[in-house]
Amino acid sequence: MSLIVQKYGGTSMGSPERIREVARRVARFAKEGHQLVIVPSAMAGETNRLLGLARELNPDPDPRELDVIASTGEQVSIGLLALALQAIGLKAKSYTGWQVPIVTDTAHSKARILGIEERKIRQDLEAGHVVIVAGFQGIDDENNITTLGRGGSDTTGVALAAALKADECQIYTDVDGVYTTDPRIVPEARRLDTVTFEEMLELASLGSKVLQIRAVEFAGKYKVKLRVLSSFTDVGSTDMGTLITFEEDENMEQAIISGIAFNRDEAKITVLGVPDRPGIAFAILGPIAEANIDVDIILQNASSEGLTDFSFTVHRNEFKRAMQILETKVKPAIEAKGVVGDERIAKVSLVGIGMRTHAGIASKMFGALANEGINIQMISTSEIKTSVVVDEKYMELAVRVLHRVFELDKAPAQEKMKP
Amino acid sequence: MSLIVQKYGGTSMGSPERIREVARRVARFAKEGHQLVIVPSAMAGETNRLLGLARELNPDPDPRELDVIASTGEQVSIGLLALALQAIGLKAKSYTGWQVPIVTDTAHSKARILGIEERKIRQDLEAGHVVIVAGFQGIDDENNITTLGRGGSDTTGVALAAALKADECQIYTDVDGVYTTDPRIVPEARRLDTVTFEEMLELASLGSKVLQIRAVEFAGKYKVKLRVLSSFTDVGSTDMGTLITFEEDENMEQAIISGIAFNRDEAKITVLGVPDRPGIAFAILGPIAEANIDVDIILQNASSEGLTDFSFTVHRNEFKRAMQILETKVKPAIEAKGVVGDERIAKVSLVGIGMRTHAGIASKMFGALANEGINIQMISTSEIKTSVVVDEKYMELAVRVLHRVFELDKAPAQEKMKP
Repeated sequence: MSLIVQKYGGTSMGSPERIREVARRVARFAKEGHQLVIVPSAMAGETNRLLGLARELNPDPDPRELDVIASTGEQVSIGLLALALQAIGLKAKSYTGWQVPIVTDTAHSKARILGIEERKIRQDLEAGHVVIVAGFQGIDDENNITTLGRGGSDTTGVALAAALKADECQIYTDVDGVYTTDPRIVPEARRLDTVTFEEMLELASLGSKVLQIRAVEFAGKYKVKLRVLSSFTDVGSTDMGTLITFEEDENMEQAIISGIAFNRDEAKITVLGVPDRPGIAFAILGPIAEANIDVDIILQNASSEGLTDFSFTVHRNEFKRAMQILETKVKPAIEAKGVVGDERIAKVSLVGIGMRTHAGIASKMFGALANEGINIQMISTSEIKTSVVVDEKYMELAVRVLHRVFELDKAPAQEKMKP
Repeated sequence: MSLIVQKYGGTSMGSPERIREVARRVARFAKEGHQLVIVPSAMAGETNRLLGLARELNPDPDPRELDVIASTGEQVSIGLLALALQAIGLKAKSYTGWQVPIVTDTAHSKARILGIEERKIRQDLEAGHVVIVAGFQGIDDENNITTLGRGGSDTTGVALAAALKADECQIYTDVDGVYTTDPRIVPEARRLDTVTFEEMLELASLGSKVLQIRAVEFAGKYKVKLRVLSSFTDVGSTDMGTLITFEEDENMEQAIISGIAFNRDEAKITVLGVPDRPGIAFAILGPIAEANIDVDIILQNASSEGLTDFSFTVHRNEFKRAMQILETKVKPAIEAKGVVGDERIAKVSLVGIGMRTHAGIASKMFGALANEGINIQMISTSEIKTSVVVDEKYMELAVRVLHRVFELDKAPAQEKMKP
């Protein structure tokens, strides 16, 4: 008997018929003797409907009140799923975030989970209940409702799996696993049977969007076995999706490159003519961080005559706010020459654990892009990825070229040998 | 400066435009210097939509899960109203039932309020906030979400007014006050400027449906000044609706009859051939009460040969359950001769505080009905009302006849003298 946490996305919960389908899948696992904690998202479209109503009433809504409104989508889902499970004879009990409680910080609409009290859930599991916990939401220490941000239900699922020391956290979604890249852009994209956490982290953060990045971080931190599966297969299907592995299996023949991620949600900002002195990066990014704006790539070029240019990327939705902060607060304070920005960029990244030990990956990447006449605006590298920022209009072309050049449509040696 | 609790019904909250209208009305009172606690219902249609989804998944839904689902309607409303108030420059903060907390018993879908912790609300009012509290919902001592039943937001409003010792509780609805009877049935029906609590209690319980009965009881118990107003008048309107008075003003010329209530939501049940011995009423109604079925009229006829007939009315929705309990549990236990029921009845009631001191009201009522050939099936009287049960098909006719005979279209002497 295992303890399994299953998270179902909004499409899986999209209608009474789909919810009944989820219930039948849960019942199959229950019949096999597993203990089950289910984390449903809001019904597809519901969160957008609610946020639409909110924005209609207030174009600059109070995040506290937005969370009060948005969290109802998941609350409806847990009740409906409990009823659907009860209708087919299972014992089921629902919990909102505050009922568990799932305690978070107070960063409304992007809260972080600080702790989960799992006692009541464990009691219910022992008593033979399927326990249903609302995804995406929590409660801060002042009893305010918080939400974890888009895709936050993944994080709820993983955090629950960690707190309960579950054997596996299964993320059911409308894709059947993690692919080398988005099949809508590269039809030859191939599904991966396994992917390491680090690769997954990069793939999710860079735009593969199969899993929320914080969920993957959480899984890595707490060594949660994470699996991505499709909720659109038959209820009895034995398809096991993509397993996200935490430790590198040394016997496994690793593909050098696992996949190509891309992202056109970012914007690039450069602060020009910055005095090259200690503390300058903090002087620029401190006010940005204070405004709760996340920064992705950060680049500082070499200095000439005591002045340097400082570039970074932010989410496109926060571009205007970031520009305003820089213009009004940072530029006068540090006496920079100017601030320029570009919203029409895209980031394309090669991701692979094998990159650590294989030289020449980056140069092969740059060469392939140059051959297609694609200009590279920024470069950023880490142990297992190499990212470039290019003009948005070249994004699809760049992804296709790299997928072909790195032969991602072909399975690596060991996978090929599988039956 | 007064402290006013305002409750807005579902129609008043029915769309973003309507919510903005509520916000403007609230702002007007805030500008006049009042402290305000606002209790909105769910947007019109929302509760039915949610319960419809629930019943589609489970025709016999678990009340605990139903409450989890149904309570989201009001939660959305408090967030939206807070945003609408903030959009026009007011400070506003929302509370769900559990955040206040509003503590109830555990009778899901018909819970009763046991207590309200008003400390946080008072702090927010002192800090200049409009406080918005979700109607219809609470929390039991096991942290389960509960709901108060249809119309429960009225009760929330009155209970908050009592806890906060508010100067007035204003119930905004889609009617502009309490009428002598339903104007859709009697076009000459007249709006009352004032009505006593006791009359209101009878009018609400008997089907006028302007206010939830429990709300009126609560107001009477805690001496809350209650006013029914229309949310469809101009925001600046000085129309004061109908004031529900707690104490009889001895100087006021009382109308003998204030109004005529009616109700076709009930069903009549008679247990035939019951042994006439002590404890028999409890033997019949005990199992009904245990099943949480409310009973309205109760009649026991005089005994003949040691056997009597025992009649009572229940809500039509609970007729089948009540009949089943009587057939399977009660009848064998007390050796009754039979159980018969009729769903096609209606109750029509004359209500008026003046009835206490005026003889002959009942006989005038029975005479008027007899003149129209309407047979009376049951009669029940109290200090301020006389109710008859008649065949459902005669209901409208009975109401019209009584309205005319008792001259309810004409204002009583004192009201006529007003400017």
